[in-house]
Amino acid sequence: LSNTENGLMFQKTMGNFKGHALPGSFFLLFGLWWSVKYPLKYACRKNKNACYLGSRAGFQRLEFVEGIIKAVFALIGMVAEQFVPDGPHLKLYNYEEKHWDHLMNWQHATMYLFYGISGLVDIVAHGTNALPVAMDRMMLSLAVFIEGFLFCYHLHGRAMLDVHVHQLLLFAVFGAAVCIFLEVFFRGSIVLEMLRTSLCILQGSWFWQIGFVLYPPNGSPEWNQTDHTNMMFLTMCYCWHYAFAFLILAVNYTIVTLAVLLCTKEVPCLFGSQSKRHQH
Amino acid sequence: LSNTENGLMFQKTMGNFKGHALPGSFFLLFGLWWSVKYPLKYACRKNKNACYLGSRAGFQRLEFVEGIIKAVFALIGMVAEQFVPDGPHLKLYNYEEKHWDHLMNWQHATMYLFYGISGLVDIVAHGTNALPVAMDRMMLSLAVFIEGFLFCYHLHGRAMLDVHVHQLLLFAVFGAAVCIFLEVFFRGSIVLEMLRTSLCILQGSWFWQIGFVLYPPNGSPEWNQTDHTNMMFLTMCYCWHYAFAFLILAVNYTIVTLAVLLCTKEVPCLFGSQSKRHQH
Amino acid sequence: LSNTENGLMFQKTMGNFKGHALPGSFFLLFGLWWSVKYPLKYACRKNKNACYLGSRAGFQRLEFVEGIIKAVFALIGMVAEQFVPDGPHLKLYNYEEKHWDHLMNWQHATMYLFYGISGLVDIVAHGTNALPVAMDRMMLSLAVFIEGFLFCYHLHGRAMLDVHVHQLLLFAVFGAAVCIFLEVFFRGSIVLEMLRTSLCILQGSWFWQIGFVLYPPNGSPEWNQTDHTNMMFLTMCYCWHYAFAFLILAVNYTIVTLAVLLCTKEVPCLFGSQSKRHQH
Amino acid sequence: LSNTENGLMFQKTMGNFKGHALPGSFFLLFGLWWSVKYPLKYACRKNKNACYLGSRAGFQRLEFVEGIIKAVFALIGMVAEQFVPDGPHLKLYNYEEKHWDHLMNWQHATMYLFYGISGLVDIVAHGTNALPVAMDRMMLSLAVFIEGFLFCYHLHGRAMLDVHVHQLLLFAVFGAAVCIFLEVFFRGSIVLEMLRTSLCILQGSWFWQIGFVLYPPNGSPEWNQTDHTNMMFLTMCYCWHYAFAFLILAVNYTIVTLAVLLCTKEVPCLFGSQSKRHQH
Repeated sequence: LSNTENGLMFQKTMGNFKGHALPGSFFLLFGLWWSVKYPLKYACRKNKNACYLGSRAGFQRLEFVEGIIKAVFALIGMVAEQFVPDGPHLKLYNYEEKHWDHLMNWQHATMYLFYGISGLVDIVAHGTNALPVAMDRMMLSLAVFIEGFLFCYHLHGRAMLDVHVHQLLLFAVFGAAVCIFLEVFFRGSIVLEMLRTSLCILQGSWFWQIGFVLYPPNGSPEWNQTDHTNMMFLTMCYCWHYAFAFLILAVNYTIVTLAVLLCTKEVPCLFGSQSKRHQH
Repeated sequence: LSNTENGLMFQKTMGNFKGHALPGSFFLLFGLWWSVKYPLKYACRKNKNACYLGSRAGFQRLEFVEGIIKAVFALIGMVAEQFVPDGPHLKLYNYEEKHWDHLMNWQHATMYLFYGISGLVDIVAHGTNALPVAMDRMMLSLAVFIEGFLFCYHLHGRAMLDVHVHQLLLFAVFGAAVCIFLEVFFRGSIVLEMLRTSLCILQGSWFWQIGFVLYPPNGSPEWNQTDHTNMMFLTMCYCWHYAFAFLILAVNYTIVTLAVLLCTKEVPCLFGSQSKRHQH
Repeated sequence: LSNTENGLMFQKTMGNFKGHALPGSFFLLFGLWWSVKYPLKYACRKNKNACYLGSRAGFQRLEFVEGIIKAVFALIGMVAEQFVPDGPHLKLYNYEEKHWDHLMNWQHATMYLFYGISGLVDIVAHGTNALPVAMDRMMLSLAVFIEGFLFCYHLHGRAMLDVHVHQLLLFAVFGAAVCIFLEVFFRGSIVLEMLRTSLCILQGSWFWQIGFVLYPPNGSPEWNQTDHTNMMFLTMCYCWHYAFAFLILAVNYTIVTLAVLLCTKEVPCLFGSQSKRHQH
Repeated sequence: LSNTENGLMFQKTMGNFKGHALPGSFFLLFGLWWSVKYPLKYACRKNKNACYLGSRAGFQRLEFVEGIIKAVFALIGMVAEQFVPDGPHLKLYNYEEKHWDHLMNWQHATMYLFYGISGLVDIVAHGTNALPVAMDRMMLSLAVFIEGFLFCYHLHGRAMLDVHVHQLLLFAVFGAAVCIFLEVFFRGSIVLEMLRTSLCILQGSWFWQIGFVLYPPNGSPEWNQTDHTNMMFLTMCYCWHYAFAFLILAVNYTIVTLAVLLCTKEVPCLFGSQSKRHQH
């Protein structure tokens, strides 16, 4: 009975469609942005006398801006989790009824907190030269790891399918954490950057899928939470999401590579200020 | 009862002898080919003024061709899984009876899909210079990982021995995934290439063994699925397969090394076009 | 019943508040010291003609002193575990009653033993040049690993919450062991040193938290050991401790960096002997 | 009942004191030898114009001899497991009684087989230059891994204490496998070589301990297989064995280092042929 009540409480506070679509959109946004940024960086590195963004300073500035956006998003997330109508409003313990208050919201706020720290470290590491730049990857890796860590202890007392779709998410989360940690040592490796990007897109699109499976909008019928074939289908579906992430990556990679080729050969650069005409 | 039905459905669609012998043959083919290719590459690298294939361009062309073969095999596999007489024919959900349709075939098609993507990446990475070459190892590593990942969620509700022989397979699969991922960073390490080759041969021959154990052809008596000593024997048998894979590797390595030595010393090269006679 | 007796025995011998606060203080002490030392080392390396401590010899001397302190602390710990009033006094087996004597104290003494060995290796590696310096990290990694290893087999037959808070500790312990092992190969990487420092502070502050949760001092009411929401809160609380560790790290890093900047620019060095005045 | 019978069969064939003391002695032998060899190699590398064995060729010859000894030991082991009075005599299946014959002996023979392969690879890699030298570490790592792998599937249906002492062994086995695999990439790292040596000594001495615990010689009383405190003591005892391994390592390291110092300074080299007198 306690589990059922827990489930009901959960359904009310966060476990609705929007609660999964929002973080999913953030991850998709970052994933899509990275699927443009890293191919661009790679293409510019190969064509040295290319456009403005290809310069080391340009990309450093980008990382700085990314850090600000990450920190702002994290702050908004934390504030939202606290001050939504049925949120905890910074109250952690209900002394009257002697139980913890809105633990789910506090947990989500904690996840955002570490992304916020990661954003701050990005800002300091790329804005000043006081901090070694590799710290940004280390903090991002930790933020992703802690997201997964909290998810792990999040799943007690839920239905089989619910647990399964969240467990699948953990593969993307811990995979990304390991990949980003490797980037501390192999910084600038395009392969690791692409892997991270693909896992980020996967995480984003899978958040949306979880929303559709557990809280079907528009009154679609609910999924049978105990049917074993549903689990098998979703496992496979997860792989299709990943294939889809690679498709997006491939399309963006192609577009960016062609654009850089065009810009360095014939036409003035679309992305920056140092057009070739000035050189002649 | 649901498990029994599931088992019966499985036996009909894919779980026959051929269904294991076919992928096993593909893996054996690739393993045997690699057991010739990598020793050849290593021997040619040591004897610089050797035959044509020893050149960097030659091996790059080989990887390109390998990619095409991989992609074609994967395409055939996907089409076959879909359009065999009792296959899903691209139908995923049976709306009349409200259940998923031929999930096994769809899962196998998904496995092939990632090998197909890996083949495509090989083609682009070695055919053009738009993609960093290390991407080929990363995609292959992912394809192998996803094969193992889908296998993991494949084994519910089967007999003990059935689960055990597939679990043993997973050691080869995940071992190969890790080994190939390491190759992203230690590309061209002959040690890792040999390890990968041995694991590939092991996987291929073990697929055949699974076929013989679970679906004995020619009316041999079935194995007792719940006998603990059968499990112990098969664990040991798995190690013998691995020892056998190393035997094959050793034989091929010796032949190739001797052939290269002969070809670089006395006789015109057997493998290529730049014979020594033209130099005198 | 055996478990309950075990629990009672435990509560008497070591499981009091002090027994957790003491090791926690040691870890905090080392963590705080490292949070000063490593930023100082990094800042001094960047500003070459900086103060005395920045020299390689100075930091080697520091590691030597650290080794002595570690060895002394470990010796004190071992002696204390043996000769506290209700300790084993070097008696391992009770032959009259035929049972092991004070196993908990012996286990803690074993943990201290390996930290002692690590201290000795530090002394030899940095005091003489007979031993390769990388041995100090390897032994420290092993000492931390063995601490975690003994903790793992420490938790049978305890209440759910008790097990959970100790399991959380293991993340910090094994994380630190892996991080220090990586330092064998990436010695002097500021990122790994900061990670180690943060995990050390986390471990220290979490030891204190365990003390407060399991043995509330000042007669506070006990925590409900079987309440699932308590577990969820503590998981989150663990993350806050980690965020707090990073806060401390950030504050110390800032202070140290500013101090070094000041000392190298305008004022005579606060930390060492080679003041700039002598150069003019 | 089946488990009890299995246990009895085991006790007869291999599970006696000697069956653990023998492999333990082999591992101790190799561990002790390595604890002399690697410090010697390190000391000689530091004192360049040192004795004969310090030369690269000398150590390569040593590795060659080691390979021969390993292969011979493995061959003896395999033959012994097959042809002991109650061994299988190469019979794998008992067709009359329809069960596998002496699976334990076959499993042990399989373990020896891979050590034999590792020995052969050592011989070829260091005797000829056809094989890359790093192959020796890879094969040794695989041999150790397969030892652990077979142990894992060896422990069904035994008493708690029996399982526990073998599980503890697995830490040393898999630790050594990982350590040796790392040596493929960080060849000649003295730290990894010392770690491997310590784990090898640990494995050897723990085999002896298992023998004493499970088959007490001289009619000592048997250990209570289900007492939880026995398990806790043995876990701790395992750590003491490891501390003891480091003690041995430290003593040998000191002796060897002093001997090399003496030999390079004043007296003619004790180990080799190029005495200093010839130079004057």
